[in-house]
Amino acid sequence: MAQTLTEFDTIAAISTPIGEGGISIVRMSGEDAVKIANEVFKGANLAKVPTHTIHYGHIIDPDTGETIDEAMVTVLRAPKTFTREDIVEINCHGGIVVTNRILQLLLSHGARMADPGEFTKRAFVNGRIDLTQAESVMDIVRAKTDKARKVAEKQLEGGLLHKIRAMRQEILDTLANVEVNIDYPEYDADTVTAKQMADTANSVIKKIDRLLSTAQEGKILRNGLATAIVGQPNVGKSSLLNYLTQSDKAIVTDVAGTTRDTLEEYVSVKGVPLELIDTAGIHYTDDKVEKIGVERSKKALERADLVLLLIDASQELTDEDKALIDETKDKKRIIILNKSDLGQKLTVDQMKQMTGSEVISTSILKEKNLDQLEEVISKLFFSGIENSNDQVMVTNQRQTSLLQKAKKELQDVVQAVNDGVPVDIAQIDFTGAWDTLGEITGESAPDELITTLFSQFCLGK
Amino acid sequence: MAQTLTEFDTIAAISTPIGEGGISIVRMSGEDAVKIANEVFKGANLAKVPTHTIHYGHIIDPDTGETIDEAMVTVLRAPKTFTREDIVEINCHGGIVVTNRILQLLLSHGARMADPGEFTKRAFVNGRIDLTQAESVMDIVRAKTDKARKVAEKQLEGGLLHKIRAMRQEILDTLANVEVNIDYPEYDADTVTAKQMADTANSVIKKIDRLLSTAQEGKILRNGLATAIVGQPNVGKSSLLNYLTQSDKAIVTDVAGTTRDTLEEYVSVKGVPLELIDTAGIHYTDDKVEKIGVERSKKALERADLVLLLIDASQELTDEDKALIDETKDKKRIIILNKSDLGQKLTVDQMKQMTGSEVISTSILKEKNLDQLEEVISKLFFSGIENSNDQVMVTNQRQTSLLQKAKKELQDVVQAVNDGVPVDIAQIDFTGAWDTLGEITGESAPDELITTLFSQFCLGK
Repeated sequence: MAQTLTEFDTIAAISTPIGEGGISIVRMSGEDAVKIANEVFKGANLAKVPTHTIHYGHIIDPDTGETIDEAMVTVLRAPKTFTREDIVEINCHGGIVVTNRILQLLLSHGARMADPGEFTKRAFVNGRIDLTQAESVMDIVRAKTDKARKVAEKQLEGGLLHKIRAMRQEILDTLANVEVNIDYPEYDADTVTAKQMADTANSVIKKIDRLLSTAQEGKILRNGLATAIVGQPNVGKSSLLNYLTQSDKAIVTDVAGTTRDTLEEYVSVKGVPLELIDTAGIHYTDDKVEKIGVERSKKALERADLVLLLIDASQELTDEDKALIDETKDKKRIIILNKSDLGQKLTVDQMKQMTGSEVISTSILKEKNLDQLEEVISKLFFSGIENSNDQVMVTNQRQTSLLQKAKKELQDVVQAVNDGVPVDIAQIDFTGAWDTLGEITGESAPDELITTLFSQFCLGK
Repeated sequence: MAQTLTEFDTIAAISTPIGEGGISIVRMSGEDAVKIANEVFKGANLAKVPTHTIHYGHIIDPDTGETIDEAMVTVLRAPKTFTREDIVEINCHGGIVVTNRILQLLLSHGARMADPGEFTKRAFVNGRIDLTQAESVMDIVRAKTDKARKVAEKQLEGGLLHKIRAMRQEILDTLANVEVNIDYPEYDADTVTAKQMADTANSVIKKIDRLLSTAQEGKILRNGLATAIVGQPNVGKSSLLNYLTQSDKAIVTDVAGTTRDTLEEYVSVKGVPLELIDTAGIHYTDDKVEKIGVERSKKALERADLVLLLIDASQELTDEDKALIDETKDKKRIIILNKSDLGQKLTVDQMKQMTGSEVISTSILKEKNLDQLEEVISKLFFSGIENSNDQVMVTNQRQTSLLQKAKKELQDVVQAVNDGVPVDIAQIDFTGAWDTLGEITGESAPDELITTLFSQFCLGK
C-alpha cells in the first residue's frame, strides 16, 4: 500500500514531553498547516517564507488580539519533511498552560487534534518509512539504555527492513519461476520447481531463525528485565538496591501519561535495563500488616524475569532462606552469598550444587565482587549481544510473531514438497509467507493492524 | 549593568521537559555553538548555512562514526537570538537516553553544561530583557491557569518594566533639579527643592501602592491557593474532591526535578489555581494508626490559604463539627452546608452568625450550588482582578519586598522634608529609592542577587 502521497486533513499536537521546561513544541502537519499558523502568528508572513526557515514573533488570538506567547515558528514544506506534508512547528515557552492554549488556538482555526502516533503514521502512509522504521521511532523514544537506542537507530536506518525485503525478493524470484512452470505446463518441470521452492523455503527459514534468535535479547533491551531482589531481613537488600540505583546507573523515566502510578525506575547494568520491582516485604511473618506486603511481593515475584536472591554467607541457611530458594526455583535467578567478609559458612560450590543456579560471593557493603554480579547478569541474558553490536535485532512481539508465522508457512512448504503435494498447492503457503513478511514492513499490512500499531505511540509523535 | 554584549563560553542543555515525547531539543548558546554542532552533525555544513534555517541530518559521534540519532538542526546567529549569542538547537527523537547521549556528545566537544536559567541569564546580561521579564519567562513556564499565563505575558512584554522605569525617571528628573540647587546654592531654592522632592515621593508612593495592591492576587495566581477540604467522615469530602478534579478542571503539573514527591495537583476554579492539600484524615479518632493521619492533616491545615469546611446540613452540629469550626477559625474559610437536599437542620444565616464566615448551601452529589461555591472562592481572593485583565501585577516576593523598601525610603523622604531636614540629607533616601527600584528591573541589581535569581530557573531555560 501507500507509496503515493495521500491528502489528509491538518493535524496538531504537543510534540514535546508534557511538563515544565525551557521550550515546548506544538506541531502541525497537513496542507493547511501554514495557513492556520499564519492566522495566529505575528512576526512574518509564513505563506511567503522559504521552506526550512524559522521565524521570531508572537502567537496572537486573532479574535481577541490577546498575545498568547512569544514563539519561534518553523516552516517545513512538503515533500522534504517527516510526514512528507507541510509541517509547522511552534516553539513556545515550555509551560503546560501556554502550550495547551496554543494547541487549542490551532484546533479552533481548523486543525484537528492528532491521534497518538499520527505524524509517524503519515510518514509511513506517505512512503517515507516502513513499519519497522516506524516502530523503531518509538523504540528510540522509549530506549532505556544506550544499547537499546543503538539497536533502534539501526532499525530506523532500515536494517531490519532490508533483511525482510531481501527474503521477500528471494521468495518472489522463485515464485516467478513457479508461475512460468504452471502457466506453461508443457515444460513439465514440476520436480525442478518443487525442489527450487523447498530450497528457497529452507534458505529463508535459516535467515528467519537468525533473526528470531535475537528476539529474546531484543525484548529485554526494549522492555527491560523485571528484577526482584529478595532475601530475609538485614541480608543486604537495601544496600544492593542503593548500589544499583546510585546516580550513574539510575534511569528514571517519565512514561507517557501523567499519573504517578506509571512512573517506573530502571537501572542500567552493563547496558541491560533492569526494572527493579519493589519487593521490600518478601520475607515470612505472622504480623497481619506485613502479610499484605508479602502477598504483594509474591505477585511481584511472579512477574520477575530475574530474581536476585540474597543469602547471608556468614550463617547457616535459615528456614526462610530455604523457603525462598524453593519459592524461586523456577525463575532465572542469581544467588548472592552476601557478607562474605564476615566469615563463610556457605561456599559458592555448595550453593551451586544445591540449587543449580548461578552463585556468587559478595560483600555489598564493601562493594566487593559487584562487578562480577553485573557480569553474570549481562551474560545470563546477553550471551550473544556483546560481540554483535552491528546486529539487526527483532525487538517486539509483533515482529516476532510474524516471523514465526512465516517460518511455519515455509516449513509447511518444505513438508508439502517432501510429501509430493502438487506445486500449485504448496505454492499457497509459499505466497502466504511472502505476505506475512510483508506485514512486518507494512507492505502488505491490513489497515486495522496499522491503526492498532500507531495507536500505541505517544501523542505528538 | 550589562547593556553591551559580553563574551561567554558555549553552554548546552536539554531544553524540553524530561520524559518521553515526540521531540526533544538540545540547545547550545555561545560563540562555539555552530562549530561544535558542525563537528557532530552530518547533513549540511552548518558553518555555511544562513541564519534562522533548519537542516535535516544525523548526529554522529565523530570518534566512533556511530549514528546517535536522526535530527533537525536549527542555526540562529547572533544577535537576533534569545541570548543575543549564536544558538544551535538540535531537535531529536524525544527519548531520555538519546537526548542525554546528544548532550554528552556536545559536552565532550567543548560545550559546558548550562546552569539552571543560564540561557535567560545571558539574555538579561546581554541586554535583551530586564529582570522582571526574565522572571516572567519562568512564570509563563510555571503558570497553572490561563489567567496566570496572561499576567506573565504582560510582564514579559515589559508591563512592569515600563511602570518601574517611569517611576525611576520621575525620581531622576527631580534629583537633577536638586543637584542643580545644591551645586548652585546662590539660588537658595531649598524650600522649593524640598517641596518638589516630597511631591515626587508622594506621587511615586501612590504608584507603588497601586502595584503592591496587586501583590496578593499575583502571588496566588503564581503559586496557587493551598486549599484544605475538611469535615467529618461521609460529609462529602470525596465527592467535592471528585467534582473539583474532574478532568476539565484538573491541572496536573510535572514540577521540575523528577522525584514523585514533588508532584502537585492543581485545579482551576474560575482561573484561580487551587492546590488541593490531602486532608483525608482530618477527623477525630482514638485509633492509633488514624492518629498519625490526623497529625499530618493538622500540618496540612496550617499550610492552607483556604479551608473548605464541610458540614452535614441535614443533622445537628456534632462535636467533631464544632471542633473543626474552632480549629479553622483563624483561616480564610468557606463553610459548606452539604446534603441540603436531605432536609436542613442548619441554615445559612445561623451558620453565618455563628462563625462570621462565608457560608453556602449545596448538594455536592447533585451538583447543586457548586457554581456559587466557585464564585465565592474567586471573589474571596480576586476582588479586583475580574475587571482588570490588562492590569500589570506584581507576582513574586522579590518584587514585593523591593517595592516595600522603596516605599519606605520615599516615606522617609517625605518625613524628613516635613521635619525640615536639610535637602542633601533627605536626598540620600530619595537616591536610595531610585536604586531600590532599579534592583527590580536589574538595572542596579548586585551580581549575587542575579546569580541567586537565575539559579531558581529550570534547566535548559
